[in-house]
Amino acid sequence: MADSNLIYGHHPVAEAIRAGKAVEKVYFQQGIRGEMEKEFRHLTKEHGIPLQVVPREKLNKMAKGTHQGVVAYLALVEFQSLEDVLPFVFEQGQIPLFILLDGVTDVRNFGAICRSAECMGVHAVVVPQSGSAPANEEAMKASAGALARIRLCRVRSMFSTVEMLQASGVQVVATALGERSKPIFEADFTVPTALLMGSEGEGVHPKLQKMADSVVKIPQATDFDSFNVSVAAGIVLYEAIRQRLGGIEGH
Amino acid sequence: MADSNLIYGHHPVAEAIRAGKAVEKVYFQQGIRGEMEKEFRHLTKEHGIPLQVVPREKLNKMAKGTHQGVVAYLALVEFQSLEDVLPFVFEQGQIPLFILLDGVTDVRNFGAICRSAECMGVHAVVVPQSGSAPANEEAMKASAGALARIRLCRVRSMFSTVEMLQASGVQVVATALGERSKPIFEADFTVPTALLMGSEGEGVHPKLQKMADSVVKIPQATDFDSFNVSVAAGIVLYEAIRQRLGGIEGH
Repeated sequence: MADSNLIYGHHPVAEAIRAGKAVEKVYFQQGIRGEMEKEFRHLTKEHGIPLQVVPREKLNKMAKGTHQGVVAYLALVEFQSLEDVLPFVFEQGQIPLFILLDGVTDVRNFGAICRSAECMGVHAVVVPQSGSAPANEEAMKASAGALARIRLCRVRSMFSTVEMLQASGVQVVATALGERSKPIFEADFTVPTALLMGSEGEGVHPKLQKMADSVVKIPQATDFDSFNVSVAAGIVLYEAIRQRLGGIEGH
Repeated sequence: MADSNLIYGHHPVAEAIRAGKAVEKVYFQQGIRGEMEKEFRHLTKEHGIPLQVVPREKLNKMAKGTHQGVVAYLALVEFQSLEDVLPFVFEQGQIPLFILLDGVTDVRNFGAICRSAECMGVHAVVVPQSGSAPANEEAMKASAGALARIRLCRVRSMFSTVEMLQASGVQVVATALGERSKPIFEADFTVPTALLMGSEGEGVHPKLQKMADSVVKIPQATDFDSFNVSVAAGIVLYEAIRQRLGGIEGH
């Protein structure tokens, strides 16, 4: 990540957070207790920013100057609030299409998903506060610049986000290989929809799968493993757009 | 690439080629002329192996011992002949589905395409002899092992391959953004098909586009750039499988 996105020191980092700047992540020195720890725990929680406790040596490597135990990366992009985006989309007379990423940590996959999402007119890409790929320069490159255009929402909890979307009339469709799963072309994507994609290793969290309105899978011709997550996201988004463009009489 | 895939020296390399081993590429020392140059030019041409002329210093870095001006990488996978694969697929009573990669040089994209191809039951991935990503360990990793299972064919010329396929009753469908392009869901993939995908930068060669039976594009909701090539390949393969599974009454 470029150094221009790096800030450090007690006061500069605290002020950046208070000023509402898009902070990607805060790194806090292991062993620091007391008021300073309380302050940063509170600030990051309040602003929904991931905080990671790391050894002093790691901070020394990141910062060129005196970091006083705290280093932060500014995000390349501004995060938006899903609570603001959702009514806006409805008001525009559009049928919401969101993509929720549960644990996609590979930056190239994250970037490629944002690229497909921008091509397909997705209204927002939603990521959890912790355990997702950073919106950094590598992700930006993999997204071919889409990361700077797509609405990106960072949420504290995927569980409450799924509940909020469902309560707002948005169906949540999880992709997973399992007994409950039906082929994507049998799902109806012409209604307000949030696609929920899981990490490559773990897939969508079992509890989120249970909460979802339906669980779908991409049909395969063989039993080989499965698709790369960015390819899978592209395929499901295509199926959604195909249905929205041409109706769903195909199934 | 692992050193175990590296061979060097006049005799070992020449013998490996003559023995029909899957040689990924031959590196030949700049400035060497005469019988040895003739021999390797002839051998590599005959066996369809890329030959690259490089400075002596590059060979010194690659080989730990005396290379005598020639170094070769053995492929991780065996290449098959498309002329052999094609009648085999027809004889099995299957409807051929091939994917032709014109200039996909990124190993991760190449690997991800092979992964999708294996999931979708593609009968062979066809790459040109020069200007394509190496089937190396990074590609293998990106393919989640699919590279070791999928049939991989290396051809001398994409032009004559397209002609050969068409003469054998296989339609060639190129993907490209252009005036001739129709949405992929309007193409008929239920007949024998070879999908032709181009490089991310250049797309499918204009002459190949002209030769193709049809040119298709993935519908987009916005005018943003386009998809990552491995995502695009996954989407077109999905559309082909969707039609083959469920008929094409959807369009």
